[in-house]
Amino acid sequence: MNSQQPSLAQGLLAGQRGALARAITWAENADRRFPQLLEDVYAAVGRSHRLGVTGPPGAGKSTLVNQLARHLRELERTVGILAVDPSSPFTGGALLGDRIRMEERTLDPGVFIRSMASRGSRGGLARATVDAFDVMDAFGFDQLIVETVGVGQAEYDVVGAADTVLVVLCPGAGDGVQAMKSGLLEVADVLCINKADLPGADRMVADLEEAVHIRTAGKGLWMPPVVSVSAGTDQGLDGLLEAIQSHRAWLEAEGRLQLSRQEQRLDQVQRVLREGFDHAIWEGRGLEGYARAMIKASRTPHGAAERILEQLKAALPSEWAQVQEETQP
Amino acid sequence: MNSQQPSLAQGLLAGQRGALARAITWAENADRRFPQLLEDVYAAVGRSHRLGVTGPPGAGKSTLVNQLARHLRELERTVGILAVDPSSPFTGGALLGDRIRMEERTLDPGVFIRSMASRGSRGGLARATVDAFDVMDAFGFDQLIVETVGVGQAEYDVVGAADTVLVVLCPGAGDGVQAMKSGLLEVADVLCINKADLPGADRMVADLEEAVHIRTAGKGLWMPPVVSVSAGTDQGLDGLLEAIQSHRAWLEAEGRLQLSRQEQRLDQVQRVLREGFDHAIWEGRGLEGYARAMIKASRTPHGAAERILEQLKAALPSEWAQVQEETQP
Repeated sequence: MNSQQPSLAQGLLAGQRGALARAITWAENADRRFPQLLEDVYAAVGRSHRLGVTGPPGAGKSTLVNQLARHLRELERTVGILAVDPSSPFTGGALLGDRIRMEERTLDPGVFIRSMASRGSRGGLARATVDAFDVMDAFGFDQLIVETVGVGQAEYDVVGAADTVLVVLCPGAGDGVQAMKSGLLEVADVLCINKADLPGADRMVADLEEAVHIRTAGKGLWMPPVVSVSAGTDQGLDGLLEAIQSHRAWLEAEGRLQLSRQEQRLDQVQRVLREGFDHAIWEGRGLEGYARAMIKASRTPHGAAERILEQLKAALPSEWAQVQEETQP
Repeated sequence: MNSQQPSLAQGLLAGQRGALARAITWAENADRRFPQLLEDVYAAVGRSHRLGVTGPPGAGKSTLVNQLARHLRELERTVGILAVDPSSPFTGGALLGDRIRMEERTLDPGVFIRSMASRGSRGGLARATVDAFDVMDAFGFDQLIVETVGVGQAEYDVVGAADTVLVVLCPGAGDGVQAMKSGLLEVADVLCINKADLPGADRMVADLEEAVHIRTAGKGLWMPPVVSVSAGTDQGLDGLLEAIQSHRAWLEAEGRLQLSRQEQRLDQVQRVLREGFDHAIWEGRGLEGYARAMIKASRTPHGAAERILEQLKAALPSEWAQVQEETQP
């Protein structure tokens, strides 16, 4: 709208890595030039397959992502990787080590790796991840991978932005029963037992397969395959790629991918709207100050929020379906 | 408003643990009876000191919290503990072990321990934590402790609901430099090096003290003390309690605690309002369906959100300071 940067969009579509890096920085910072940039390249968005990789610290996610990238390159597919929050002190050490090894891969122009700190985009990590994926998609990678560490609330949202979610577990680092209890099974499209040579791996595979079976059998749902790999020695990687590919094929059949992406887009609208509301109305229109006054008048935070919500409800349409759009193209 | 439960409020204020457990469940589930309950007990809220404990998996947080509780009991202070997300598969095993040890302490009526799963309250973990703290506060504990595992975005919000934030590190599990880079120092009011007998502990203490000094010296800011403990052997626990107590005394001087709690309450209003907006307007008034239509009309999520935001701005007051409140008491 205001400060257009057609050159950045052109650079992005022309495959300039510097333009891509800058576009991701805009996404990360919620730069006000980002929406126009996305508009300018959006026709090229939607071709990449999006893989989310999550699992406990120490499960070997980074090594696995590294190996996946290598295998994909052997198949002449280009790969864009987002690593969310490698600056975490909790995994920082190990991850940085892996990352340095992965950076070697960046000498290959068919691979792009970018770290996203969750700090800079607090409150908007999932929004920023989807935005970054969109520009990476427009850039033209065949495969996008987002790797998150830990499974907090924000991390669930991040992997939710993927077409296919790969959950990486390893024997010892939280067993299969823990994974079942935690809801990790519910987000997994493919389950991967890494370090499959460790004791307990076979039992873990059997437990997970049974759990997956119970959850999905006879319900017409996707049944997540459980794949054993040893990312360090490259063993089982072909099977893992096949499993990912088979989930992708399943999604693409019967319009499931399109449906899933519509829901992802709706989630993203909600996130952008929430940030916009916080910026333009909570801060920009003094709702924050009004809330302070309401706290004094209402005692509890819930009372204050309720009073504000009543005012919002009074001012806003009772049924949005009936709203006529009056904005111009 | 609708279904009042004065008996639950009365039970809570009378110190019935069953009533407390139920009140926390309401907080966790965003039960619609919760706001009235909170209103009924809110006069009793505000006396507890609130401690947030965070740090990497394996730093020994649970053991430390257990020891802190034991020391506080020796001083005849009552303790309420919230453990956020012990169901995480990433820390579940170890944490459950510790938790079982902690449960022994629940035979003591002066200690209450409750686990909060982040799953159930997705999107509202910080909101639920503050609500739970408020009812625990009304119940009458001297000390409240919330322990979070990992530091994602949601976990930062959770510890932000505390008066005093204790960051627990241990040599080896992410070094001091990592902690500095990660922003952990920025949230810490007290830094604790656990397992201080491990190699590297002295160096870590020195590094952290230097970093803390650089960040805070001469700026009139609180300078977080760095305390070495060995929670397993109880060594250094007195010093840690003193450090927490000294931060509390600093807060209580010059009205800082009051200011900090006002900001916490405002954050809570914003969270409750956001959940209320999502429920009453996004879902309840069909804004979600309207957003779907806008996606079709706008291509990008940002375009769709912008169109909706323009409509919100057109309908809402241009300056909330001028809004007359018309709701009755």
